[in-house]
Amino acid sequence: MAASVWSVDPRTGKEREQVAVEADAAEVDRAVRAAHAVRAALADRAARARLLRTAAELLDAARDRVVEAADAETALGPVRLTGELARTTAQLRYFADIADEGAFLDVRISRPDPTTTPPTPDLRRMKIPLGVVAVYAASNFPLAFSVPGGDTASALAAGCPVVIKAHPYHPATSELCAALLRKAAAETGLPEDVVRLVHGFDAGTELIRHPLVAAAGFTGSVEGGRALFDAAAARPVPIPFHGELGSLNPVVITETAAGQRPEELAAGLAASMTQGMGQFCTKPGFVLAPAGEAGDRFVDALTEAVEKVEPGVMLAPRIRGRFLTATYEDSQAEGVTAPVHPGPAGPHTAKAGFLSLDAGTLLEGGRHVLLRETFGPVTLVARYASREEISAVLALVPGNLTATLQAADEDPDAASLIAELTPLAGRILVNGWPTGVAVADAQHHGGPYPATTSPFTSVGATAIERWLRPVTYQSTPQHLLPPELRDAGE
Amino acid sequence: MAASVWSVDPRTGKEREQVAVEADAAEVDRAVRAAHAVRAALADRAARARLLRTAAELLDAARDRVVEAADAETALGPVRLTGELARTTAQLRYFADIADEGAFLDVRISRPDPTTTPPTPDLRRMKIPLGVVAVYAASNFPLAFSVPGGDTASALAAGCPVVIKAHPYHPATSELCAALLRKAAAETGLPEDVVRLVHGFDAGTELIRHPLVAAAGFTGSVEGGRALFDAAAARPVPIPFHGELGSLNPVVITETAAGQRPEELAAGLAASMTQGMGQFCTKPGFVLAPAGEAGDRFVDALTEAVEKVEPGVMLAPRIRGRFLTATYEDSQAEGVTAPVHPGPAGPHTAKAGFLSLDAGTLLEGGRHVLLRETFGPVTLVARYASREEISAVLALVPGNLTATLQAADEDPDAASLIAELTPLAGRILVNGWPTGVAVADAQHHGGPYPATTSPFTSVGATAIERWLRPVTYQSTPQHLLPPELRDAGE
Repeated sequence: MAASVWSVDPRTGKEREQVAVEADAAEVDRAVRAAHAVRAALADRAARARLLRTAAELLDAARDRVVEAADAETALGPVRLTGELARTTAQLRYFADIADEGAFLDVRISRPDPTTTPPTPDLRRMKIPLGVVAVYAASNFPLAFSVPGGDTASALAAGCPVVIKAHPYHPATSELCAALLRKAAAETGLPEDVVRLVHGFDAGTELIRHPLVAAAGFTGSVEGGRALFDAAAARPVPIPFHGELGSLNPVVITETAAGQRPEELAAGLAASMTQGMGQFCTKPGFVLAPAGEAGDRFVDALTEAVEKVEPGVMLAPRIRGRFLTATYEDSQAEGVTAPVHPGPAGPHTAKAGFLSLDAGTLLEGGRHVLLRETFGPVTLVARYASREEISAVLALVPGNLTATLQAADEDPDAASLIAELTPLAGRILVNGWPTGVAVADAQHHGGPYPATTSPFTSVGATAIERWLRPVTYQSTPQHLLPPELRDAGE
Repeated sequence: MAASVWSVDPRTGKEREQVAVEADAAEVDRAVRAAHAVRAALADRAARARLLRTAAELLDAARDRVVEAADAETALGPVRLTGELARTTAQLRYFADIADEGAFLDVRISRPDPTTTPPTPDLRRMKIPLGVVAVYAASNFPLAFSVPGGDTASALAAGCPVVIKAHPYHPATSELCAALLRKAAAETGLPEDVVRLVHGFDAGTELIRHPLVAAAGFTGSVEGGRALFDAAAARPVPIPFHGELGSLNPVVITETAAGQRPEELAAGLAASMTQGMGQFCTKPGFVLAPAGEAGDRFVDALTEAVEKVEPGVMLAPRIRGRFLTATYEDSQAEGVTAPVHPGPAGPHTAKAGFLSLDAGTLLEGGRHVLLRETFGPVTLVARYASREEISAVLALVPGNLTATLQAADEDPDAASLIAELTPLAGRILVNGWPTGVAVADAQHHGGPYPATTSPFTSVGATAIERWLRPVTYQSTPQHLLPPELRDAGE
């Protein structure tokens, strides 16, 4: 008998209701085949745009229900979730515009040229959808990086049906949103099966192995993401696996910046690292701050700011458990202090904190294991004694979504630090904080492994590129070409 | 002691000279570190363009020497090799223009917008080079897909140093071309180590595992390419592996087309499948032709055309051996006939041929194993009895670089056949032949696995996209931005 899928209240740890059952291999197969069977319905870009806009309308209309369902399962609170829903529906409309406009088709036409070696025939190239996309929803954004999120929106905009593997920490929200997306399809005159939802860990591994799945998008942990990446690569026919796995999001504070505005930096960092209980993939998890007086003032201010942060409920009891274990272990490592100790604050809540050590400690053999992401409201502050120590530590930092420089105007080290941060991340910030990922054309939400498993972004216009492949038509009569490749007037 | 690398004459099977020694792990490490150490020298796009143009000049100036060296090792003949060198130097100049122009940077700028959720800061995105690229040279194009070929040209244009793994069937040509590329670097004022060459099978596997290698390009067999793809995916930090592995390049001839122009089709196919002794990745290796009278006339004409093809020397004794074994085995399969039997024609030459069977035979359990690439001058003609049989057989065909339709004007099946061929290939041709891959903006030389291991092309302007990743600068002062992202006048 299939295992039940329960919605759990993280504020109490209690099961709320049974939402669904886990999909077995046969059910995953049915879902993928159903999605694959209706892929041609998404060939029309205008229809995709209508689907995405209708989905946004239905989600907006169901706002109270959606926010209530998500809050009950994630404890993220109605303010944050109302904002996240607005972001989500704006993102659906953004990809509707992108589908309508069609720039992502990247049309290129080469006219015949007999003078080249070899001669150039009439070549017309555009991008076409890859096929069924598997979407692995994230825990920490039950809307914007889950069922109605960026992977789904960009895949549908590209013309790819989706089979979504629901995240187990918000199954009821997932069911509600999937029903609204499927309703949007029906209202747009499209088959509902352009969106399918499955639950269960095993369903996720079945999905990545299914021969009719053509690509996958994933947001989650390094462990889970890497296992799926490996499975995608090991298939008889490997497929692109676009995973966002883990990121430390280093911040470098120059001595000048720390000296000029220690309180401002402390307030900004405290807010960014504890936003959403630190459960953001762009949470600043590692900070290089100067040793000495300027740095002391910054750390004192940070201590004060973080102590003021209210305890909160994390997304799930297991996430809270991992946070408490990891921060406790790190705090016990040699050379590490805890100016504000992260820890439990009642049976279901946790409180923010931060750890500190000398940067030189990280340079000792084996100590760089501290340079890993801890999901939750904590950061590690490493105090550097010299410019050279910054470089030495940065050389140990794995790939990131973001890297941030906090510098003064005319800071003598700014240019060289940006040159050292750029190889480490997909987004470089100066005097800002990395949380808050705008949905914009110039956004890049990706970075060197393990930030992402491919050089693509999962947020912004170019996220659609993940679900497409080019095809070139050679010497093909006008009436046999896709409309986008025909000569004007044909 | 390191194993010797010998240049072999395929016309005699005899060793000509010792060219180099195989690189051991330490030598591969030195090569990668040397290339990595000089990567900043390629930051200037104008310098890259000068390097590529100087390389083209030096190769053109050394034409006689290069053609002689390549002919002695590959037996491809001076006419073909002179053409291939022209293609190669044109390709180097083409990528010089691309480097100068910079459209591949794909610059996108989003201005601040406080009205979005979350608010949009100043975001400026462009693409930057990935780092050291490993290039695995092909056997069948000792210039255009080898040391000075498209992977090297596009990687250098992108700003990536290259470490090239020489193909063992033309090591002397590889040494000569690498020396000219390194000389071009020196003449341009760049470090010679932007190009490094290594020899040896083990060197190839060391290279793909090296932590400072950031991406790889490969042209070769399914076996070798898949092994390297698997190694690239299994690294602690996986890297993009852009491999071109194998392609059947199916051709569908409609009954109308066969009836209207059997001789023309036979002549075109015979020329395309035997060009360069059938040693092209785009060789048409599988042909669906109608049963019945029209198809008979085509097959008779093909028999006549292929019988006239002169025997030739293949690239290497081992390639000839594999060709003879594979074609013999296939010819013995039940239901297969050999209207012109491919086979030996003396101790070092082979003659072209083709096999035939009823399409229905392929639909029997297990018989689709015949649908695999055989490197050399042979094709398999399957005679179909109905339109439905075409679809049933196409459903068994793996991914391809090309798929070709031979149809009549106003052919009633043309549109539906193109719709069925498009999912199978990266380039669709109507009434042409797939050999001859123009270096052009709209070219796409790639396709569903095993044609390529990624959705990218290895020929044409967009081949450069393989060696880049996006980075976004957020709220970054003008003077700290890369020049391409600054406001005009800054």
